[in-house]
Amino acid sequence: MVVLGIDPGTLRTGYAVVESVGDRLVVRASGALSIPPGFPFHEKLKLIYHGLQELVTRFQPDEFAIEDVFVKSNPKVALRMGHVRGIALLVAANHSAIIGEYSPAEIKQAITGSGNASKEQVKFMVAALLRLTDMPAEDEADALAVALCHLHRRRVSRESPIDILHKRHSC
Amino acid sequence: MVVLGIDPGTLRTGYAVVESVGDRLVVRASGALSIPPGFPFHEKLKLIYHGLQELVTRFQPDEFAIEDVFVKSNPKVALRMGHVRGIALLVAANHSAIIGEYSPAEIKQAITGSGNASKEQVKFMVAALLRLTDMPAEDEADALAVALCHLHRRRVSRESPIDILHKRHSC
Repeated sequence: MVVLGIDPGTLRTGYAVVESVGDRLVVRASGALSIPPGFPFHEKLKLIYHGLQELVTRFQPDEFAIEDVFVKSNPKVALRMGHVRGIALLVAANHSAIIGEYSPAEIKQAITGSGNASKEQVKFMVAALLRLTDMPAEDEADALAVALCHLHRRRVSRESPIDILHKRHSC
Repeated sequence: MVVLGIDPGTLRTGYAVVESVGDRLVVRASGALSIPPGFPFHEKLKLIYHGLQELVTRFQPDEFAIEDVFVKSNPKVALRMGHVRGIALLVAANHSAIIGEYSPAEIKQAITGSGNASKEQVKFMVAALLRLTDMPAEDEADALAVALCHLHRRRVSRESPIDILHKRHSC
């Protein structure tokens, strides 16, 4: 199963294509769609739409995992992020894929075992779980985390992330 | 010049295609994209996207006028409306059209002369300015109003809506 994780943002939209092959998790692609500064907002949305479309065409994800917007932050920022999130949901809906939506706390809980974990802790656990050689950038780590969170929820077994980590390290 | 006015909403997204032909304003189409209840949110976004795309293909608008979300209302509702607004901006950007964005107060000001006008007053003025035989429904009226607001801003002359109204009635 191939999952496209998306962390919607107006300046940088993180993405991660993670494939679950048997017991293994393989990162097919990850990074961020970076929007050049000075672009009008609607042009940013267009770039994000076409960037995500390109990933869909290339990797044909079976499922999407999209991070929720934290509504209690600055409402104007949340609203703009809502616009980007709408684009991500549209791309997923147009591809007729299953969509998992997760709050930042749910993602942190799934990855580190604590809904209050710091961004650094999440990043560290993401790198460990996926055996990454380089530490991912922030938006990339968030997209990897939401993809992992989704895969974790979809696993038939009830292993905790720690169990997966241990199993991976013992491979 | 053909303007597509959009009032983004999660249950009903109002639309209005208004053409300015010399001194005349002609409504080519207006109504609301009504989403059947019970649809998942991403499916609603997809229906709105394809509904707006259809209007663009049919009427080839030169410009778009899109209502802003009132951010101080319920933040969760505003966030969901932001998703729909993102779709509307995407459709406009993909069509490479000029986009006007207006707050509810700006629209009311342009249509009635008061930023605090009631919805009924806006509806009444929209019907009068466009010489509609039937009173439009709420979302339809809002879409007509944002299209009118945009056309009013784009007019070279500095006539007030009241002047336009008087001119129309004296035709």
